[in-house]
Order: sequence, then C-alpha cells, then structure tokens
Amino acid sequence: MKAEIGLEEMEKAYERLEGKIHRTPIMESSLIDQVIGLPVKFKCEHLQKTGSFKSRGALNSTLRAKEAGAKGVITHSSGNHGQALAWAAKSCGLPCTVVVPENAPPSKREAIAAYDADVRLCQPTVKAREEDCQRLSKELGYTVVEPFNEPDMINGHASIVKEIFEQEPETDSIFVSLGGGGFASAIAYYTAKTHPDVKVFVVEPQGKFLKQYLDEGTLPENDVVNTIADGVRVLRIGDYCKPIIEAHCKDNLITVNDDEIREAMRLVWTRLKQRVEPTACMALAALLHYKPSTVHRPMVILCGGNVDLNFLP
Amino acid sequence: MKAEIGLEEMEKAYERLEGKIHRTPIMESSLIDQVIGLPVKFKCEHLQKTGSFKSRGALNSTLRAKEAGAKGVITHSSGNHGQALAWAAKSCGLPCTVVVPENAPPSKREAIAAYDADVRLCQPTVKAREEDCQRLSKELGYTVVEPFNEPDMINGHASIVKEIFEQEPETDSIFVSLGGGGFASAIAYYTAKTHPDVKVFVVEPQGKFLKQYLDEGTLPENDVVNTIADGVRVLRIGDYCKPIIEAHCKDNLITVNDDEIREAMRLVWTRLKQRVEPTACMALAALLHYKPSTVHRPMVILCGGNVDLNFLP
Repeated sequence: MKAEIGLEEMEKAYERLEGKIHRTPIMESSLIDQVIGLPVKFKCEHLQKTGSFKSRGALNSTLRAKEAGAKGVITHSSGNHGQALAWAAKSCGLPCTVVVPENAPPSKREAIAAYDADVRLCQPTVKAREEDCQRLSKELGYTVVEPFNEPDMINGHASIVKEIFEQEPETDSIFVSLGGGGFASAIAYYTAKTHPDVKVFVVEPQGKFLKQYLDEGTLPENDVVNTIADGVRVLRIGDYCKPIIEAHCKDNLITVNDDEIREAMRLVWTRLKQRVEPTACMALAALLHYKPSTVHRPMVILCGGNVDLNFLP
Repeated sequence: MKAEIGLEEMEKAYERLEGKIHRTPIMESSLIDQVIGLPVKFKCEHLQKTGSFKSRGALNSTLRAKEAGAKGVITHSSGNHGQALAWAAKSCGLPCTVVVPENAPPSKREAIAAYDADVRLCQPTVKAREEDCQRLSKELGYTVVEPFNEPDMINGHASIVKEIFEQEPETDSIFVSLGGGGFASAIAYYTAKTHPDVKVFVVEPQGKFLKQYLDEGTLPENDVVNTIADGVRVLRIGDYCKPIIEAHCKDNLITVNDDEIREAMRLVWTRLKQRVEPTACMALAALLHYKPSTVHRPMVILCGGNVDLNFLP
C-alpha cells in the first residue's frame, strides 16, 4: 500500500534512508556573497548518490516497493530520476526498467544503463512516456515508481530539509527549482510543518506558467517547456504536488529565463568550482535577479550535477 | 630575514595561517574507486581561497614580508600564484604587482586584477618574467615573492599535509603534480619528517625530463613544457626544491601525457562534479595509468580549479 504524504511518513523515510544516501555538504563563496549582497549557502545535492536529489525519493520508493513484494521497478524519465531509480533498484537487488525519451542527453541515458537498468527509448512526449511505462509495467509485472507524483518519493525527498536545518540552523529561506513539483512540494511541506517561519521559494523556467495553472487551472497546449534546464522541461506539476505548492508557495514563485540560468551557472562553475547542471542553477538565478527583500540567510539548493561533458553555459 | 625550510618553520606557518585559509574538504567517488581498484581520497585544494593551494604559501610569505616591513609585494606568475599573492596582499592591506606572461589564460589574468593587483604583461619566457619582476621590484621598492623557489612559500604549503593526516589518518601515499616543485617539495619534506612510512609520488608532464635533471643536472634548451596542464609549464624546478625532491621522491616520479590528463579530467568533472583545471588532474592520471603496487590508501591532491569557462577536456 502506498504511503500518504505526511510528517510522520517523512520522518520514517529519513530513518529508512540514513546511512544509505549521502549527507551532502554545504558550500559558499565570498564572491557570490558580494554579488548577491547576502551570505548565501549552497546545499550540494549534486554530490548526492547518482548526482541528484532524486536518489532520496527513489530509494525510499524502492525500499517500500520491495517491502511490499515488488518483483521489479519501472519508470519513465529524461534522466536523473531514471538514474536514481536504477541505482536504488540495484542497491536493493531488484531489476529495473526505465523508459527514456529519445532526445534525452546521452550522458543521462548512459548513466542509467551503467546501473544495469534496461533502457527503453520512446517518443519525446509526456503521453508516450507514460503510456509506454504503463504498458511495460503490465508486461513485466514491475511496480511503477512515478518521477514526481508519488507519495513515497515525496516523503523521501523531504529528508534534505532535516539536514539543512541541522547544518545551517540560521537558514531563513530555501530556494529550489521546480519541474514536476515532487522535490519542491516535499521541501515546502516539511518546512511548513517544522519551521513555519522559513519561506520556501520555488523557481520555474519561463514558459511554465505555474501561477496561471495555480490560479486558473489552465495550461498551454504543449506539454514541455523550451528551456536549457532539461530537468524541469515537464509542463504540468503532479496532482499530489499542486495543493502543497498552492498552500505554501503561491506567493513565493519566481520565474527565470535561460540567460539568467546561464549567468548563475557561470558563477557556480567558476566560483564554487562545482560542475552542476542548468536546472541546478535556477535557484541562484532567482536570487541574482529577483532577490526578495525579506530574505537574509538563503539556502540555495544545487539539485543536480549530471551535465554533458561538452555543455558550455 | 627569510626563513629556512624546516619542520619548526612549517609548524609556525600552520599556526600563522589557521583560520585565514580554508581547511579544504576530502571527496571520493565509488565509480573512481572501481576504476582504480582502490579507495581513493581527493584533497579538494581547488576549493582553497583563490581556487588553488598557492594561497597557503602566498599568505605565509606575505604575512612574513609584512612583519619585516615590506611596503608591497611583487611576483611573476602565469596565473594561480599571482592570484594567490594578490589575494594575500589585499587581505594584509599591502599593494601588489604581478608580472604575467601575455599568453596566460584570460580567466587567470582577470582574477589577479579582481584582487586589486597591478597586472603587468611580459613576454612568455621565464627570463622575461624574472627580469621584469626584478626591475619592477627595484623601481617600486616591493618585496619579491617567488612563485615556487621560496622558503616561506614552501613552509606555508606544508600546512596541507597536517590537514590530510588529521582528515584521513590511514593515508599511505600522496599523489601531487609538480611544476616548479614548491608544493611537491613542501609535501615531501613535511611528510618525510612526520610520517616517514608514507610515500609521496610526484607527477610531471611529459617533456619535463625531471629524472634526467635529477640524475645528470641537464635540461633541454627550451624553458617551458608543451602541455595542457598550464600550471606546470615551467621546465626547471627551484634550487630549494631540487634537493628535497631528490632526497624523498627520486624513486617516486611518474610522467603523464596530455591524453592521460584529459581522461582523468573527464572522470573528475563527471564523477566528482568538480570543475578542476588540467594540472589538478595529473595526480589522478598517474594513478589511473601507473598505479604503484605498494599503494593501498592514496590521497590525490586536486591542486587547483582555475580553468577557462570554454575549456573542454
């Protein structure tokens, strides 16, 4: 049986994951502090297992699926989630299949295969991904682990917040990039329950129209956003995620464009010396260009570091 | 008066620098461990102030020069040393001039200027660098801080070894890239005095002919090595460094070529997610291709992270 999203389940997930994932470090740069005009801390989640936060939720979901007797796990992913699930399945001794859009970056596809998962290419639409995943899950008898709209995943992701407040108790705000909304809603939910004075700012790519979706429930016809931030190209946020984002972050949405992301990326690469992916730079881009006046001790999450070797910002 | 190279002066330098430089972290990657077949630790000196180990020695030299009444400091450098000295001078409130070969990477030149140093371009030969530096030092009345052949510099650099053994007491070998020899001889000297069972392997770029120089005292006519590792292009090692390298590392020299450096760099960039410079990857390249059979717990020093934004390995 799938868990509910909730504080108790998040605490259980934290314990379930302890020692199996990295407690990722915090970094800072005096030059970036000067540029922003505040002491900025970076939570280095690109140094997590498989190079992204996704391993938190993927391992929680896989451990729960295994407890429930799953004979394998399957998902669809353009990269980081697939890699995380493949790693999680391997570390639990379960087989894994990942449906990957044929336009996903080669580095991510190869990395999924490197964790011994069976990679199946599909058309680059959300519909094709979901349909192929459902069909294969029936054929193989594997449990589907959704990339973001999945309570066990969200409960696992929340483990990062506990680490942040242990590492930097003075944090007064958290900046996180938002794609399907699983990570952002995990952070928003756990923070609201445990540190209600701390604001969570969610950062979307231009073209996602999250405010319009929250206000009116409508979205453009296309199902992907055109952005260099390939981790947040999905247009729709999950049904589990929407009410959480609505309740806690509706007034804390920031939209950034590709130029702003590139600028942030150059700072992270040259100053922090961290080779993170474009999606990971959205949170800093937000702080660079739209710094909220109430923010004094921001925590910027560098959510992933899986970027092709020949990518230049 | 300039210090002698020695254990007591190294301990004093450690105390002088404490709290003024970073205690850089250790990283590891399970994939790199698999590739090498050993648990490899990386000392992340590219996360040091100004992005390289040079800040250790430069600050020690500058603090000592200030104590002795210097009215400014001056050096010649293709990059990291100049940046480190500019930072050190600024943090001590002293003016600084850096003579920079006109072919140095733009990122390094700009970084020197960003610490308010006066940058003077010169012809790209060792002779021109040294002559311009001497002439300007007389004109300006500034104290010369040599890039590598300088006891205060070497005593300051040795502070890294104390950190390594506190952080990873099981280390049985240290791998470090060698250019002018200041850093390598600092590590070799301090390690020999405090941990005589630990081997220090020095890694040179192909074309440097260090073994020939140590054996016969002869060198090719040219004064720079043709390598992508721009931090170690100087052909000659310092007079202070030579006897130390001779005494402690003569049987522990490893030569790597540019392809081997690039291969190591791809691993560090994609697996450790650390954007280090080519010079910093020589130590891993040595371990990748010429792993000594006596080594079980190697510490690889990532010595710097100052690499142009458009560089691809």
